[in-house]
Amino acid sequence: MDVQFLGTGAGVPAKFRNVSSVALKLLEERGAIWLFDCGEATQHQILHTNIRPRRIEKIFISHLHGDHIFGLPGFLGSRSFQGGESPLTVYGPEGIKAFIEVSLSVSKTHLRYPLHVVEIGEGIIFSDDQFTVEARKLDHGIQSFGFRITEKDAPGVLQVERLKEAGVAPGPIYKRLKAGETVTLEDGKVINGTDFLGPPVPGRTVTILGDTRVCPNSRALAESADLLIHEATFNRDQEQMARDYFHSTTAQAAATARDAGARALFLTHISSRYAKEAWPELVQEAKAIFPETMMAHDLLEFTVPRKSMEEQS
Amino acid sequence: MDVQFLGTGAGVPAKFRNVSSVALKLLEERGAIWLFDCGEATQHQILHTNIRPRRIEKIFISHLHGDHIFGLPGFLGSRSFQGGESPLTVYGPEGIKAFIEVSLSVSKTHLRYPLHVVEIGEGIIFSDDQFTVEARKLDHGIQSFGFRITEKDAPGVLQVERLKEAGVAPGPIYKRLKAGETVTLEDGKVINGTDFLGPPVPGRTVTILGDTRVCPNSRALAESADLLIHEATFNRDQEQMARDYFHSTTAQAAATARDAGARALFLTHISSRYAKEAWPELVQEAKAIFPETMMAHDLLEFTVPRKSMEEQS
Ligand SMILES: [Zn+2]
Ligand SMILES: [Zn+2]
Repeated sequence: MDVQFLGTGAGVPAKFRNVSSVALKLLEERGAIWLFDCGEATQHQILHTNIRPRRIEKIFISHLHGDHIFGLPGFLGSRSFQGGESPLTVYGPEGIKAFIEVSLSVSKTHLRYPLHVVEIGEGIIFSDDQFTVEARKLDHGIQSFGFRITEKDAPGVLQVERLKEAGVAPGPIYKRLKAGETVTLEDGKVINGTDFLGPPVPGRTVTILGDTRVCPNSRALAESADLLIHEATFNRDQEQMARDYFHSTTAQAAATARDAGARALFLTHISSRYAKEAWPELVQEAKAIFPETMMAHDLLEFTVPRKSMEEQS
Repeated sequence: MDVQFLGTGAGVPAKFRNVSSVALKLLEERGAIWLFDCGEATQHQILHTNIRPRRIEKIFISHLHGDHIFGLPGFLGSRSFQGGESPLTVYGPEGIKAFIEVSLSVSKTHLRYPLHVVEIGEGIIFSDDQFTVEARKLDHGIQSFGFRITEKDAPGVLQVERLKEAGVAPGPIYKRLKAGETVTLEDGKVINGTDFLGPPVPGRTVTILGDTRVCPNSRALAESADLLIHEATFNRDQEQMARDYFHSTTAQAAATARDAGARALFLTHISSRYAKEAWPELVQEAKAIFPETMMAHDLLEFTVPRKSMEEQS
């Protein structure tokens, strides 16, 4: 489970930061990649990564501002042109369907894969045996959603040494024990698999928010998250500006991470008013409040850590 | 009058060629720039040029395929965001209006400048005292237009030395003579300005075609043009492929330039199937038919020459 930032700027593309998109790479977990937002030229950014568009199975759109959606029609078309045939689902606020339909129909873009577009509200918008995605409304003037992606816990590791000590010889039986079954050996001994499993491996939680002012739902979505990705359009001193334009400051993002008990924070959606030289200061402002803060930059990749090494073994 | 290529690839963006857009810089002539097509990330390409979006007063869309229009909503929004207040007109085939309207309304993009969208047919689609733009239909499966941009002839240069020899002293009167007026001097002598003007400076003609198969209208639009910009999606040997996909080969573009009596040709809309190493061969194929062939590449700039030095003096 890795995140890779494809665009980390605000509003308009700039030389060093493209408009918004984040890839959540679930290649080990499900052989798939999810995108969160798809600003113009997201497909161009992808050309500079190892992401294959056909691997992208879901796209979550936080809100309909142009810098978060104008790359969608081009990406959808190119995914088909480049041979993508597996289904793709786009989740987004009401209006996303009309935008996609008009863009594809006017341009006579015929997709060779099934495209599902789901207009979302608050609640669990996706769930299977691996992942759950919860959406909640933020505070951005227009409808803007934050997403909490929860990986389900995985069963613990089979304790092979302890099994051998208990006289259970390795063989196909190990597989059944690992699945937690109760097995009767040839000598009549009954072995309960769950007695030989380590603690379950806790799933990870990643919270990716759309543009927003500080609001209670941000904190709720980020509760104990392993990683929070939060916009920080303005610096600490521009709180009024952030309020006026429905955005957040570095300090506000950090306070949300702290209050939610998140384990790490990435600042993104950085305004182009801040030149490269100003970036370290932006990070410092946030670190003063939440030490585990990092700043996103385009193409940066980050592996979401599990809760602790002990719990993983 | 310069052209600058912003995207010279076909269908999908590639590392070395973005999707279609050409800027026609008329800065000396009218302090303005015109765009022809606006594929995704055209505004990103502009960041690497000296073009200021507010200077762009007209955008001509040849056809509605995604690689020619998906950069439009983002460009329109950014032009406003960056302070553009002067009017902008977009000309394009039927459907362009719906695409722009839905994109801007769904994304709540409010432009601070007047935007006019004109759905065009064949004929003169724009004309003022400087320029005329004629559109004709090409052959591309969907409606695709080619554009012939004609600069009007400028009056000849005032022949100052000859005037002095004729006893006309320099003064405000020169301005009236330059305008071709007839003036009576204090001594009663009558001077006709047109007798003292050099030959008119011929306007230039640039022909910019949308995607197309070989067709009579391409040739008509390119008749005696100073510059023809023609797609060459495929190489000489792929004539059947070009036909099947409604495109042209290098050789077909060159033959059109030759048959039309154009003075120079740029090949553009080059498929990404041709790696950098193959580009010289593509140009050679065309040069064998039309020696004044050049290949476009992203950001290349070219000054459109006037007919001849003599005619300019
Ligand atoms: Zn926004
Ligand atoms: Zn086309």
